[in-house]
This record gives sequence, structure tokens and C-alpha cells, in this order.
Amino acid sequence: MKLAYDGSNYHGWQRQSNALAVQEVVEHAIFKLTGENVVVQGCSRTDAGVHAREYVLSFGLELPINCKGLQMGLNSWLPDDISVIGCEEAAEGFHARYHCKGKEYEYIVHNSRIKNPFYRNTALRYSCAIDADLLDKASQDFVGEHDFKAFCSTACDKEITVRTIRSFSVRREGDLVIFTVSGNGFLYNMVRIMVGTLLFINEGKIAADAIPSIIASKDRKKAGKTVPPQGLYLNKVYYDEDLID
Amino acid sequence: MKLAYDGSNYHGWQRQSNALAVQEVVEHAIFKLTGENVVVQGCSRTDAGVHAREYVLSFGLELPINCKGLQMGLNSWLPDDISVIGCEEAAEGFHARYHCKGKEYEYIVHNSRIKNPFYRNTALRYSCAIDADLLDKASQDFVGEHDFKAFCSTACDKEITVRTIRSFSVRREGDLVIFTVSGNGFLYNMVRIMVGTLLFINEGKIAADAIPSIIASKDRKKAGKTVPPQGLYLNKVYYDEDLID
Repeated sequence: MKLAYDGSNYHGWQRQSNALAVQEVVEHAIFKLTGENVVVQGCSRTDAGVHAREYVLSFGLELPINCKGLQMGLNSWLPDDISVIGCEEAAEGFHARYHCKGKEYEYIVHNSRIKNPFYRNTALRYSCAIDADLLDKASQDFVGEHDFKAFCSTACDKEITVRTIRSFSVRREGDLVIFTVSGNGFLYNMVRIMVGTLLFINEGKIAADAIPSIIASKDRKKAGKTVPPQGLYLNKVYYDEDLID
Repeated sequence: MKLAYDGSNYHGWQRQSNALAVQEVVEHAIFKLTGENVVVQGCSRTDAGVHAREYVLSFGLELPINCKGLQMGLNSWLPDDISVIGCEEAAEGFHARYHCKGKEYEYIVHNSRIKNPFYRNTALRYSCAIDADLLDKASQDFVGEHDFKAFCSTACDKEITVRTIRSFSVRREGDLVIFTVSGNGFLYNMVRIMVGTLLFINEGKIAADAIPSIIASKDRKKAGKTVPPQGLYLNKVYYDEDLID
């Protein structure tokens, strides 16, 4: 099943005891529609305030219900900030997280000295003029297989911090600057630290050609700051074609 | 002064005793910045949930403060859903409402069977396919000077219900359908009833050429329903050039 959600009002994807998460709301809607208590498998954790244009989850149901009916039924139970945008039968044993082959994220910056009320929960406002071409060029140094330990929150518990970035682009659309990154996997806060590093390059706080040496350092302190969550979107999730219908 | 605001969290523009309105928040910010208690003059009432991309207000201050400083200072006091987007000195006696020569409104419909969480507070979702060309053609019958009593909420207290619509257009941009109307003035709920009437034309509940006879009837019951506020934006406010700097 594919969801889109505005993460503004949620404490991320993963169910937790002390705050409302998207997972809990989705499981509750499934229960209201089908009477079944299921634990859904999400493709990824997302942080509080982060959005998804396409989030994949998997679960099994006893109830014989077709995909269209499940989609329409859940959408009537879900709040307006979460939508089921697609649903299909998966191969036996399909798991949204374990079988995920890659993801694409987008980060949106509203590049303006004047705040825009309509972007307050959906973009980072940033006043200094951004040279998108410069950052697009610099971002190419992220592409490839690297140990991204320097671009991982110190709270990260992963032992293996090698990931492959397939593509990175930075482009301007009016007063928005859009960072798009695709890779086989991402560490905790990795996209937000990569974007923060590019913004430091924009400000001259980090040299435009410094990304390879920051990667080599494996030192979080050499990278830029973690930009806030509201500009971040999970855009696409990739699987092998034969696993989904 | 020009504001932009997301009206989702406000009970419209006008200060009231039992609910938070944009006017009250702006006057409070002016007080925090300058220490002066002013009553600002807004160009228009807007309903709860209605947005503004450009809202004009006027007020006088004792404090000698330049426009740029006033704008930046107020923006730091205002919440993120209200922004001062411009400020200039007006001619002596300028009044944002009395001197207003016209306005442009936009109404955004998200034309999709699947809800989009990012449009939940900023567009009306409407499932049936919209024929934007048909509605654009039909909407031309609104243009001109007419008695719009049939397109005015029955709660309207205006004795004179003649207004001039200068232009009306309906266009599609992907899965959004955008209604844009400009006129010398608008009655209570007038834009929302005009859009609701066009949507009834889309559904075949009202004939495509019926607008002149509905206008002639002066009967609110002949027009379509009032569409909800979250799709409505005050886009532009017009004044004589010589009144503003």
C-alpha cells in the first residue's frame, strides 16, 4: 500500500508510546474498516515533521477485500493529512522494509527574505541567496558508494555506514530551491545533514570541493548542520518489479 | 501594509470577542513592536478559513519608524501563518477599505478522486471530472455590471447588491482547477456561490447558459451551493495609484 502524508502533526512514522505517529493512525483505520488488529510494516522510519509523497507499507489481512475497496474504505477513516494513494497485492512474503531497494528524497528550501505563510510547514525558509548551480555541482561528490559516517546523526546505531548515492540534483524553481537525492539506503538524518552541508557551502563556511574530504574524515563535526524536518519529503520507494503486482 | 496569511487557524480577518481573528494578531504584534495600541483598517472581511496572498491594511503610528524596519520587526512578532509582504507610506487620510477600487480572488479546486494531504487546508477536493473550458465559457456571463443578489448569502445586509465583475477565468493546471475573478466589490460569500454555481453546471444540475437568468431572478435558491472557505484566496487589492507611494 502507498500512502502520502503531511507529517506536520505526527511524531514520525513509527508507533511510540508517548506521541502520535502515522503508523498508529493507519493501524487504527485498518481496525475500524476490517475489525482486524494488524501491525503494518513500514518502508522506513521518518522523523517528526517529515512528509511523504509516497510511503510504502505492507500487511496481511484475513478479510477478502479487493485493493480498490481497501483504499477507498481506509481513506474514509483516515484523517485528511494521510491518504492511501495506491494499493496492490504483493508477492507472498513481501516486506516493505526488508525488500526495499532504494529511495528518493526531496528537500525544499524557500529562498526568500520574506516568510511565506503557505510554506511554513512544507519548506525551510532560508534568506541568503542560493547559487543552485554551485550546489548542484558540489553535490555530485556525494554520488557513488561511500562511507557516510560523517553524514549520520551521532545518535545513529548502524554499524555499517556505507551507502550508495545514485543521483543528487539541486535546482531552482522560482523562489524554491529543490534538492533531490536517490540512493540504496540512508542513515539517520543523512539527507538533512547533506543538505545542511550544501547550505554551508553556499555560505562559504565549507569549501565547494570539500565534500570528498568530509566523507573521508568520517567525522560528523566536519559536515554542516542538520536542517529542520519540515522541508523533507520521502518521494519514491523502489522494489524489484517481481515482488509487486 | 500588505499581508499574506494562511487563514486555516483563524476566524477570518475581523476582530471578534469569541474567536481569534487575523486582525487581533496583527494589532498585538504592532503593540509588541511599538508599544502603540492601534486599530488597523482592513481592506475586507474574510471568512474563517479563507486565505490571502495580498491583504491590504492601513493604520497610523506615532513612532517614527521606516517601512522596512516596521515590516521586519512585525514579521518577527507575527506567527508563521501571517507575513508582512510589503509596507509603504500612504497619502494622508488613506483608508484600506474605503479607498479600495477592486479585488481579485482565486478559488482552487483539487480535482481528484484521491485526497492529497498537502491540499487539505488550501483547496476544495472535488471528485467528478471538471470540464474547465466549459466552465470558463459559462463564467463569462458573470462579467459586467449586474445585481448579484442571487449570489449573496441570505445573511448579507447590503442594500445595494449591484457589483461589476471585470473578468472571470477557469483554467486547469494538472489536477488543480483554478477560478480567478476580479471585480469592483464582492457581496458576502459571492465568490464561493459563483464557484458553487459553476460546479453545479459541471454536474449538469444547472444549465451551462443559465447564469443570466439566475442573475435576473435575484433568488439565492436558484444559484449553486456555497463552496467551503479553504479553497478561497484574496489575491490582489486595487487602489488609485496616487493614494499610495
